[in-house]
Order: sequence, then C-alpha cells, then structure tokens
Amino acid sequence: MGENRYDDEVFFQKYGGMLRSRKGLAGAGEWPALEKLLPDFSGQRVLDLGCGYGWHCRYGADHGAASVLGVDLSERMLNRAAELNSAPGITYRRAAMEELDFPEDSFDIVLSSLAFHYIRDFPRLIGGISRWLRMGGALVFSVEHPVFTAYGSQDWYYGEDGEILHFPVDRYYIEGEREAVFLGERVTKYHRTLTTYLDTLLRAGFALSRVVEPQPPEEMMELPGMRDELRRPMMLLVSARKGQRPGV
Amino acid sequence: MGENRYDDEVFFQKYGGMLRSRKGLAGAGEWPALEKLLPDFSGQRVLDLGCGYGWHCRYGADHGAASVLGVDLSERMLNRAAELNSAPGITYRRAAMEELDFPEDSFDIVLSSLAFHYIRDFPRLIGGISRWLRMGGALVFSVEHPVFTAYGSQDWYYGEDGEILHFPVDRYYIEGEREAVFLGERVTKYHRTLTTYLDTLLRAGFALSRVVEPQPPEEMMELPGMRDELRRPMMLLVSARKGQRPGV
Repeated sequence: MGENRYDDEVFFQKYGGMLRSRKGLAGAGEWPALEKLLPDFSGQRVLDLGCGYGWHCRYGADHGAASVLGVDLSERMLNRAAELNSAPGITYRRAAMEELDFPEDSFDIVLSSLAFHYIRDFPRLIGGISRWLRMGGALVFSVEHPVFTAYGSQDWYYGEDGEILHFPVDRYYIEGEREAVFLGERVTKYHRTLTTYLDTLLRAGFALSRVVEPQPPEEMMELPGMRDELRRPMMLLVSARKGQRPGV
Repeated sequence: MGENRYDDEVFFQKYGGMLRSRKGLAGAGEWPALEKLLPDFSGQRVLDLGCGYGWHCRYGADHGAASVLGVDLSERMLNRAAELNSAPGITYRRAAMEELDFPEDSFDIVLSSLAFHYIRDFPRLIGGISRWLRMGGALVFSVEHPVFTAYGSQDWYYGEDGEILHFPVDRYYIEGEREAVFLGERVTKYHRTLTTYLDTLLRAGFALSRVVEPQPPEEMMELPGMRDELRRPMMLLVSARKGQRPGV
C-alpha cells in the first residue's frame, strides 16, 4: 500500500489547522454547493472514497443512510475520523481506493471529496465504481479543477511587487503527475482534463445530473484571499447517476 | 438587428483567409472531434445557429437531412454560404439568434459552431432551443472554452524575450463582455463559466451525451502554433439530448 502525505506528522498537523479540519463541513467553502448535489440518504448503502476525518460519512449516517463505509489511505486520518465521527452504521477502513474491490451492486451512493486528483488512473476507478453501484445509484464527487491542476504549482502568477497578476494555465492536455506545494509540503497530484473527468463518466454509462464550479459563499468572502477565488476556478463538483442515459 | 464584425469589410476579408474558411470543415482543427458528436441526419429537420459559410448546413444536407435552416447575423457570411454551400433542402436566413422564435417541435437537431460566445444571455437561448427541439432531439455545439475567454485578451502571457510563458486566467467567475483581438480587429465576446454552459443544459432538462475539449489532430500538429494548443484548451464541444434525464 502506498505512502500518504497525510501520514506525515508535520503535514498532518498543518492539515489539522485548516478551517475545514477544525470546523468540518461548515469550514469547507464548497460544502453548501456540494450539499445541494447530494441525493437522499435514507436507507442507502454509502461508500466514501478518501473519507479523511469522516465528516461526509457522519453526514450520511445522520441523514438516514443504512450503512456508510469510509475508506482512506491514511491511518492518522482514520484515527481522527473514529474520534470525531463515529456513529452506528459507519465503518472506517484503511485502503488505497485504486486497490478496492467489491461485488456488483454493493452501494447505492458513492461519494468522494477532493480525493480523485490523488488517483493515477481515473477511468479504471470509474469502471470499478460503476460495477459497485446499483443501476440508478448516485456518484457525487469534488475534485481540484483542471484549471487549478494544469500548471502544477497551484499558485498565482505574481508581479514584481508581489501582487497577483493572474492564474497560469499550461500543459493542459498533458495529463499526469504534478508536484504542488500544499501547506508548505510537496504533494503529488494528478492533473487531468475536464474531458477526462466528464466524458469518462458519460462513456461509462453515467448520466450527469449536475456540474458545478463552486464560488465561495458570501459569508466567507471577507476571509483572507477569498475574493481572489472569483478569479479562477479551484474545484469542480459533479453528480451523476449510473445508467439510463440516452444514446449519443 | 445588431451590427456584426463579420459585416466589416476588412474583418471579413481576413476571416476569408483563415484555413477554416478556405478549406471548410477539413480546415477546422476541431472538426474531426465535432463530427464524432453529430447524430444521424437522415430525415431530420436541422437548425444551424451562426452558420457562417454554411459548411455544417451542407454537411447535414449531404448526410440526408430533410431540411436545414442556416441562420447568421452577417449578410456577407450568408452571401458566401449561398455561393459555396447551396443544396436542395438548405435555406439561409439573416437573423440574430437571440431574436429567433419557432413553434415547439420545429427541429430534430440544433447545431452551432463557435457562435454561442457571441450571445449575451445563454440560459435564455437554451430555453428557446429546448422549446424548438422535439423530445429526444439533439443539440450539438462548439464554443470557445471558458479558460480561453476568461481573461479577455485571448492571448498568451509572454516573457521578456517574447517567448510564451503560459496562458493567463482571471475574472473566471465574472461573466460577461470581453474585448478580444481576433484577426487584428477588436471583437466583443461573452465569457461564461463551464458551470453556466453545462449546468444550464442539465437544469433545462437536457441529458449530456458528450463533453469534449478537442486537441489538434496529429496531421495538423506541424502547422505554426499548433503544438502550443496542447498547453491550454481553446474550445469546448458538447452534445446533448432534450429530455429523458434521470433526477438529481
């Protein structure tokens, strides 16, 4: 099983200091937009890929899910999830999502929040998810936006006086590894195009329900740097249903 | 009826010199990708919004369309369309696409190639197209990519020695007018986000069939500037079907 930045002591401490870690869903700028994309959890079997601290697992359980399986590669994350977000029906499991396998029709809902950009082979993962989901089941995920991941540094382009000039895009069609700096530590992520994210789903037989690039909510707009978030998209939210799509 | 850059003598001459104008579909880098998204034209009633020289109208007629209505705002364009691409079943009409209206169920297929970024109110236009299309009818269009239109200049960001550094993105969430330079002339286009392009269709009841950011075909890769087209997406191709989409 691969190593994970979130199992690095320093990185994990810094991650723990982020608003989204301290406040959970309410501290994540994209949460209000993501919540609107979620299906009804009542009686559903839920899989959360890259569950982190387990906030989404807890949300599913609190909204009536029959079972929730949260999977993450980081043992530290899972320990925190167990501390913060244990509830009847929730199970946490340590695994790399690329190495998971389940019988067909194992889940009604698959969730993933900001984790798929750590995965090398997205079409293969979608093939798996499509098998594990029942017909008509929902896939809802957020990822870092292709505009945000293309260049690699995930940073603004600055002028001579340190002012932000714009956000740089380069190597857009060259998919694959990017070394970004996140919380002061080097992290490997995978850039892929919007075509790969969306058309892979369509070609795998998913019907897209919603495609949303979230903007910071008005009440977070005065936090440091938030107004600049109107200058480039940082995240992409997608909801889809397995099957039932008309032909091309 | 609004004025149009394509009715400007100098601009029209320059446009006529472009590869896509001289060679038609074969001269348009995105054509092989767009062609794959087109539905079967046999016996279909087709509307082409922003038909230009009429190459797509002719393609539809040549592939068995029952009727093709090509609409463009530019009289010069329509005169060239009549010269180059007349065929039984094709009608050309001068109109602004925002001012069009048709009875419900007037068309089986609506096409538009690189024209929707000239339109101020995209959701309103999609509302119209949705009414004009029969249930299950196809909408296929290309537009300039939101990454390409966001900043406004539609030009690379250059280093001190005139070398390309990257492509700049800014004002992504600030939709609306952009003044770009195209063929040396100032042209007004409208930037909108990917969310507006795709989620408007989904919320209007369309099922997305394909979403593609075309790359230059291998045989055009040695043309000037073509390799740089791998550095940022310039176009977005979308195909969709009216109705029949599952719930969120």
